[in-house]
Amino acid sequence: MPVARRTSRDIRSESRLIVVRALLAAGETTRNELADDTGLSAATVSTVVGDLLKYGIAAETGLLSSGIGRPTTGLRLNADRGLVAGVYVEDRYFQATVFDTSLKRLANVRIRATEPVGTADAVIEWTARILDAALGDAGAAREDLLGVGVLLPGGMQRPVKSAFASDAIWLHLDRLRDRLGLPVVVDNPLKAVATAELWLGAGRRFADLVVVNLGEGVGAGIVQDGAVLRGATGTAGEWGHSLLVFEGRECQCGRRGCVEAYVGVPGIRRTLAETEPGHPIADVQGGKFVEALGEAADAGDAAALAAVDRTAQFLGAALADLVAIVNPEHLALAGWTTFPLGERLLPAVRERVRADAPGDAAAELGIELSRSSGMEGIAAVALERFMRDVGLVTTRVLPAL
Amino acid sequence: MPVARRTSRDIRSESRLIVVRALLAAGETTRNELADDTGLSAATVSTVVGDLLKYGIAAETGLLSSGIGRPTTGLRLNADRGLVAGVYVEDRYFQATVFDTSLKRLANVRIRATEPVGTADAVIEWTARILDAALGDAGAAREDLLGVGVLLPGGMQRPVKSAFASDAIWLHLDRLRDRLGLPVVVDNPLKAVATAELWLGAGRRFADLVVVNLGEGVGAGIVQDGAVLRGATGTAGEWGHSLLVFEGRECQCGRRGCVEAYVGVPGIRRTLAETEPGHPIADVQGGKFVEALGEAADAGDAAALAAVDRTAQFLGAALADLVAIVNPEHLALAGWTTFPLGERLLPAVRERVRADAPGDAAAELGIELSRSSGMEGIAAVALERFMRDVGLVTTRVLPAL
Ligand SMILES: [Zn+2]
Ligand SMILES: [Zn+2]
Repeated sequence: MPVARRTSRDIRSESRLIVVRALLAAGETTRNELADDTGLSAATVSTVVGDLLKYGIAAETGLLSSGIGRPTTGLRLNADRGLVAGVYVEDRYFQATVFDTSLKRLANVRIRATEPVGTADAVIEWTARILDAALGDAGAAREDLLGVGVLLPGGMQRPVKSAFASDAIWLHLDRLRDRLGLPVVVDNPLKAVATAELWLGAGRRFADLVVVNLGEGVGAGIVQDGAVLRGATGTAGEWGHSLLVFEGRECQCGRRGCVEAYVGVPGIRRTLAETEPGHPIADVQGGKFVEALGEAADAGDAAALAAVDRTAQFLGAALADLVAIVNPEHLALAGWTTFPLGERLLPAVRERVRADAPGDAAAELGIELSRSSGMEGIAAVALERFMRDVGLVTTRVLPAL
Repeated sequence: MPVARRTSRDIRSESRLIVVRALLAAGETTRNELADDTGLSAATVSTVVGDLLKYGIAAETGLLSSGIGRPTTGLRLNADRGLVAGVYVEDRYFQATVFDTSLKRLANVRIRATEPVGTADAVIEWTARILDAALGDAGAAREDLLGVGVLLPGGMQRPVKSAFASDAIWLHLDRLRDRLGLPVVVDNPLKAVATAELWLGAGRRFADLVVVNLGEGVGAGIVQDGAVLRGATGTAGEWGHSLLVFEGRECQCGRRGCVEAYVGVPGIRRTLAETEPGHPIADVQGGKFVEALGEAADAGDAAALAAVDRTAQFLGAALADLVAIVNPEHLALAGWTTFPLGERLLPAVRERVRADAPGDAAAELGIELSRSSGMEGIAAVALERFMRDVGLVTTRVLPAL
């Protein structure tokens, strides 16, 4: 039965998460400011802060003088409580980042393999090693970790069509947990970026927002009523594989005409090739291509400018579909492609979205570049999972191992 | 601040709505069965039923013998508590339906004007008159009504581009309420159909579903976590004006390539005309066209069969986009077009959705025809609004006048 049964225990759990997010956003703050920031009553904030102090999630920072009235006790997240780590796993790219409990980044290690890592065993081994390397850089060890978050493209329910071992890992998550010997949470990068935006970005102002990730692949993290939408099989947000052109360009997913085939990096490369066949930078591989395209556009290269403008039209039209269907308060653009091209795409994208969205659904819609990273998002989920493990939070963290 | 503050009062309110919906679904039931159906504790059900009896929303029906154990008291919604009505308002079509409190239909009146009703005043007058006509048929009067729900295409935030007075009415809702002299709720038909499906249809099995309405216009009502998604400006679900073909057919909304331009009735007519220019039934106007097309297909007309199949491909691809973005548990197809064409479209639509949706997101997805009507949905909202007015429910009913 689709029955929402919230108990008073869930309400306490929700209040604790709200206060932790407010602490994360504020850095150092006070009980009064937390009440102002969260809309919770002073009494609730006081109870919740008591719980967080008791479990070492928050710490007092001494008296703060505010200029008016008597000084009040400062509060912050307790950076000494422990560490959390994120690991990004792709077919030939691994990255590990270590954070303290206030989500301050302490160390970051990347490895790019020359060939795709071929087996689930090898992926597990690489994940463990790069995590240890990042811990070493942070002067820490595995026992200092409260938990690890792993960013895996794809999802639990996705059939393993590709030869990428990182996809196969979804079937061997228990082995990954055993190898790491730590509490592990796993999420798709799209959802993790949305979590980061929710905790640390526009989510501080909006309860309904969409974070679009633009890279080799593209997709959306949809936040509704302060929670990341997952969907029946965990694939909600696969906007990159919704249609831009019925029976249009072939997409790597097997479908034809997907948004990704137009605004993913290979799609932009194809748009340039269609604009000017044989253009030299169309051969620049990987993420370097969008950098080269941005530089060529800056230098006034006509084909590059035309390809960027065409991309903005494709992207704006595809984002207008998200506005039509989901109608968010805010739209954040994240991912590799936005670093070199974001500012250049933004004006035409905004114009196209306003023109194409139903009625004036986009009239007040903010469309902004985001610096949210999936790594921060998955670290936040690992922290949330730790709070659940100690009994402070009742929400289900999915998939947690 | 996007802070969800649920109080224990909200939880009681939610439990009452859950029990009312279970009563609506069950017809006659018992406290024990309500606990089984809703997952609420026996104690909660007992308290909630007490509240509903006190306010006359529910009534006891005498002892039911279950075969085993001692007889228990039967419960149902109290059909004598009062009436609710729904009125559908379009530019040249008005319909009013009167229901009792258990949402049993008592009377229904339709009027089709030969010309669009030209002014907001005239729309208000027609609405009042058709409501009185339906009440007359039910042997009732306005003072018997607990409330009225009005179905208005478009939405609050939609700029009045069209000359239709029914659109302009959104700007004069207070005058409509004053003329009727009753509590009024107003909703877009897409959302009202979704509400009906949620209360009376697949919502009894699924918390996350999409109801697609197929008629002259097309759109979706998206239900998530047991609530109809509205979006920042009330336009969530405007899937009909998301893209099927970038820069494709002109849509009545002004955009090019919208889903509606392919699977709305005029879009299907155009598909037939493209299949066989000058085909005689392409000139059949309004909803009769889809009936004529269904009959021609049944008779083996090759162009009609081809147009129906092409429509199924368009529709399946467009529905796969909803699966990619929202990933529901269930997809219900409602609306005029489904009456003559639903069974004929369904097999190819199901196949296309499974092929086009990401991974196996649609492998377990039920795609079924729905008989939910917006009229039942808006009557349910009017009932919910009455429960709010007497203090049984705290949820905001939007827009309520
Ligand atoms: Zn695709
Ligand atoms: Zn349109």
